[in-house]
Amino acid sequence: MRTVDLIHRKRDGEELNAEEIAFLVEGYTRGEIPDYQMSAFLMAVFFKGMTDPEVSTLTDLMMKSGETVDLSSIPGMKVDKHSTGGVGDKTSLIAAPLAASAGVIVPMISGRALGHTGGTLDKLESIPGFRTNLTLDEFRQVLSEHGLAFIGQTPEVAPADGRFYALRDATGTVESVPLIASSIMSKKLAIGLDAIVLDVKVGSGAFMKRQVEARRLAQMMVGIGRRMDKRVQALITDMNQPLGYAVGNALEIMEVAQTLTGAGPEDLTQLSIEIAARMIFLAKITKTLDEARDIAQRRLVDGSGYRKFKDVIAAQGGNPQVLDRFELLPNATGVREISSPRPGYVSNIDAEYIGQASQMIGAGRDTKEDVIDPAVGVILEVKVGQKVESGAVLCRLYYTREDRLEDAAQLVEDAFRISGTAPEERQLILEVVG
Amino acid sequence: MRTVDLIHRKRDGEELNAEEIAFLVEGYTRGEIPDYQMSAFLMAVFFKGMTDPEVSTLTDLMMKSGETVDLSSIPGMKVDKHSTGGVGDKTSLIAAPLAASAGVIVPMISGRALGHTGGTLDKLESIPGFRTNLTLDEFRQVLSEHGLAFIGQTPEVAPADGRFYALRDATGTVESVPLIASSIMSKKLAIGLDAIVLDVKVGSGAFMKRQVEARRLAQMMVGIGRRMDKRVQALITDMNQPLGYAVGNALEIMEVAQTLTGAGPEDLTQLSIEIAARMIFLAKITKTLDEARDIAQRRLVDGSGYRKFKDVIAAQGGNPQVLDRFELLPNATGVREISSPRPGYVSNIDAEYIGQASQMIGAGRDTKEDVIDPAVGVILEVKVGQKVESGAVLCRLYYTREDRLEDAAQLVEDAFRISGTAPEERQLILEVVG
Repeated sequence: MRTVDLIHRKRDGEELNAEEIAFLVEGYTRGEIPDYQMSAFLMAVFFKGMTDPEVSTLTDLMMKSGETVDLSSIPGMKVDKHSTGGVGDKTSLIAAPLAASAGVIVPMISGRALGHTGGTLDKLESIPGFRTNLTLDEFRQVLSEHGLAFIGQTPEVAPADGRFYALRDATGTVESVPLIASSIMSKKLAIGLDAIVLDVKVGSGAFMKRQVEARRLAQMMVGIGRRMDKRVQALITDMNQPLGYAVGNALEIMEVAQTLTGAGPEDLTQLSIEIAARMIFLAKITKTLDEARDIAQRRLVDGSGYRKFKDVIAAQGGNPQVLDRFELLPNATGVREISSPRPGYVSNIDAEYIGQASQMIGAGRDTKEDVIDPAVGVILEVKVGQKVESGAVLCRLYYTREDRLEDAAQLVEDAFRISGTAPEERQLILEVVG
Repeated sequence: MRTVDLIHRKRDGEELNAEEIAFLVEGYTRGEIPDYQMSAFLMAVFFKGMTDPEVSTLTDLMMKSGETVDLSSIPGMKVDKHSTGGVGDKTSLIAAPLAASAGVIVPMISGRALGHTGGTLDKLESIPGFRTNLTLDEFRQVLSEHGLAFIGQTPEVAPADGRFYALRDATGTVESVPLIASSIMSKKLAIGLDAIVLDVKVGSGAFMKRQVEARRLAQMMVGIGRRMDKRVQALITDMNQPLGYAVGNALEIMEVAQTLTGAGPEDLTQLSIEIAARMIFLAKITKTLDEARDIAQRRLVDGSGYRKFKDVIAAQGGNPQVLDRFELLPNATGVREISSPRPGYVSNIDAEYIGQASQMIGAGRDTKEDVIDPAVGVILEVKVGQKVESGAVLCRLYYTREDRLEDAAQLVEDAFRISGTAPEERQLILEVVG
């Protein structure tokens, strides 16, 4: 078997069998296949895609490239939630405590901010003392005690995925549906989950700009899970405007606290409850999804999700008081208001621009080495559909340094569209797959 | 400027400007852009192609990546001929002497056998003593004295092309029209030519399997030449069956000798004269192409092409007597006959199979390091359209080692199709571009 022949065949649209995919993935992981052949193969995959058997084989190989975490000592159904990444997307920090407080075991493996999208780990680390770098034993311990624990990607889990991702990032092959699907699913399945709820974002602030692509990604991930006997459901949700009002790490923790006490934004609350409900339902705690929705709603209203999050913050070394006293969180030193130039309706708030502006003032990273400023970000004062007067505040930028502030402010201004007529109402949850 | 952004844009079908192409080619040549990014870029080019300005810029950069050969001290129009590679294609060795004997200056930069296709250098080196590794000074000397000299690709000429080609060869990106076009043209234009005649092969034995691709390649090369103020014409010619009867290095030299004395196969003679005529015409030796055809024909009939080839063989250290006394050429030790299993018409002789069989018994290379056996090859006894009896000899394999003989014989057998009805007559010269 020769690598160049396999590249040729993928390039020409042929399907590779399991042995051939294994030759590539294992050869690359062992360093026998050079980067330059793998990147050409990945670009061919970008153009020609992968069949369901191909992507399942790839996922399985990446999963098996490292350790798989055994959580069988902890009783109960393990259910994780994963978002493909958005702007202001803090649903993990709401849905996971709600599901855990309803009895679901939630081993949360989260990621970091990437480009204009935020990362759950960075948000958690804005809580003073919070440790995301637990050992696997500590992780098991917190999970066993509270039914919920947060951890980052460890180098032992699916290491092949790490190598593939770094190569894709440098070679313009990130945005490939089968490569995204196998990357996500290999890391999730290495944790010994029973079920997964996926939140596939679509719109300007998401990696998937079009619903048809988001649907293909959702279907592919659901298919991978099914072929491995896991229960998987995917929501396709709108990411044209930021989710909730807050974008930025500590700012989002504040909004999580508000939402878990029933005072959160409508869109964020709705989506978090729907995701929590599906986690509860897939964990077989209820017979129907409607019952699960009732439970998730009650766990929000009675404050048990809120308490659960506090307990886990404390268990992972953080100060749980931050949820009540926001002054304990890192706070920005300056505020810049962006106002509406004219009266009208907010017809669009471009999530990508808001995310980029937030990244520019330090809430995200340009390169992996950049240090996040947890205090900074953007708080919207309006959402799409709202009527505004001329001069009304559309949003506020919270900053600590002024060096890229003007550019960021310009980007935020450009993100808003004010129209004479009210825009059509938009759905938040567009589709369910699985 | 970031390489990954340029890969993205090419991947998404955008046109890169001259500065961006230069960033990539120069960065890669200097070793600043790694192989793995360039191979991803090349695969994106495979799928998305290049515009005319892009391919001209690429060609110009590759040409300027090394030395350009100054032939201005030699008076007269310099015209080269290039074939995209075929099976049994020895037209260079016939057309070049004919054109040179008519007064054209022909600086022949030739290649080696690659895959199932033969190489002019390997054919010449089957002549005892013949040196293809002339210094540039020796090359100029022979060219100045005889109007014709043969040399291989030197590392000083278009070195970027060499690096690109090696990478393409390992990453499944050889078969890209703009990459082929720029590779060929950069090497030709670095020699200071005034005009080029291109022979773009199409069919089973060629890199281009379909006429539409061959036409695109021809048009692209003609366009590159025009934008650099060179006279370029391209013939698109059939390579479904081998050209002439002989396939293999010394065997083809024998057929060249026969053809230059007027006793060659009809197809080979016709194409060689047409190419020589176009070289003469582009060198402005005649006003019309028809006059040029007359001259080429006369140079064949009066033996001046034959004498020219002998003179150049002698000038480059070879024994010119081989053209009269074939026993002075390397000769095979064994012969295997392939006979027709039934009476009928020869409806196909798959050139790729014949080329592969010839390669298997040693006439070509599997890897660059393989040593060619100059004596071996295949001699057809029939051509497409011919009527054969059952048991009639279709061709003979000339071999010196038996280790892969059976596989090669099987391949040759499979190459022949014998039908009950006569096949439609085929054109040899399908199209002229430019």
